[in-house]
Amino acid sequence: SFNVQDDTELFEEALIPPENFNMVCEHVYRSSFPKKKHYKFLEKLKLKSVLTLILEDYPEQNMKFLEEQNIQFLQFGIAGNKEPFVQIPEDKISAALAALLDKRNHPILIHCNKGKHRTGCLIGCLRKIQSWSHTSIFDEYRRFSHPKSRSMDQQFIELYDAKQVWPLVDKRYLPNWPTLADPYF
Amino acid sequence: SFNVQDDTELFEEALIPPENFNMVCEHVYRSSFPKKKHYKFLEKLKLKSVLTLILEDYPEQNMKFLEEQNIQFLQFGIAGNKEPFVQIPEDKISAALAALLDKRNHPILIHCNKGKHRTGCLIGCLRKIQSWSHTSIFDEYRRFSHPKSRSMDQQFIELYDAKQVWPLVDKRYLPNWPTLADPYF
Repeated sequence: SFNVQDDTELFEEALIPPENFNMVCEHVYRSSFPKKKHYKFLEKLKLKSVLTLILEDYPEQNMKFLEEQNIQFLQFGIAGNKEPFVQIPEDKISAALAALLDKRNHPILIHCNKGKHRTGCLIGCLRKIQSWSHTSIFDEYRRFSHPKSRSMDQQFIELYDAKQVWPLVDKRYLPNWPTLADPYF
Repeated sequence: SFNVQDDTELFEEALIPPENFNMVCEHVYRSSFPKKKHYKFLEKLKLKSVLTLILEDYPEQNMKFLEEQNIQFLQFGIAGNKEPFVQIPEDKISAALAALLDKRNHPILIHCNKGKHRTGCLIGCLRKIQSWSHTSIFDEYRRFSHPKSRSMDQQFIELYDAKQVWPLVDKRYLPNWPTLADPYF
């Protein structure tokens, strides 16, 4: 027999992560652009910061959510790496990485629009700081950008010199991640 | 000019995660079958347990690695959900989930052979306990099983009744994850 109450409970209980949601490392999450239906899930993460890579103004509804939840808003706006001659600015990526490498901002959610390209580039550069091999970095990039992976993005990651982030980092607040390249190298 | 020393250093520095490696939630990792070239990366995770879903005996080399690193070996052997009439045993999945839900086993690495199907089913069932919507559970399953996703696996996840895990769980050792269904429901 069909039980309306059970179905209602199921509907109310289910939490909806934003698309392409994933835990990157301890206290760092990635996703596509969060919408209202994802707020209940995001509340559970007890975020301290949201780091967005979009260029545009943040929607009022999302800004209100952040204010209500007392979540810090960090914007490092960059254009997508789509057209020829469009380049991801290395300094923006380095500044975003420095924010990720400050545990006072954690837990933190990184997002752009689809959570594929700009977010994928930032995570790829983070993996370089975590000493991952390029093969595993590109595997992860493609897992989240499929079927729209861009070789320009992978080239950006490969050429990015991760050492430029260390002058921007306060070593007292480095997260306690299992792998992190030696900042004094 | 070609610099042998720099190349050697690069080779020595890069850490190689097993294929399909990912952080599932705090202190829980997933991957394909780890081989010798991945040991250096795995050492950094300071694992307390490895949970494998393969049926076969564990290779001597891997067993030696676990012993040297003082890592607990947990085996919940199940066959792949490949042929018609082959079914994933629900009781094995429940027992494996109970091991994941005991923080005394953390940090823990889950693996099968490819880290796609059996591991994907276990993670899918874990996400049910974490109250994720089926859409987001299947998105994650497919992200890691692509291009070999199996609808039989997704059906298994959908039909698995996550409530059967609670009698196997000692609530004193439940992990402190952001979303976890109410065990007294």
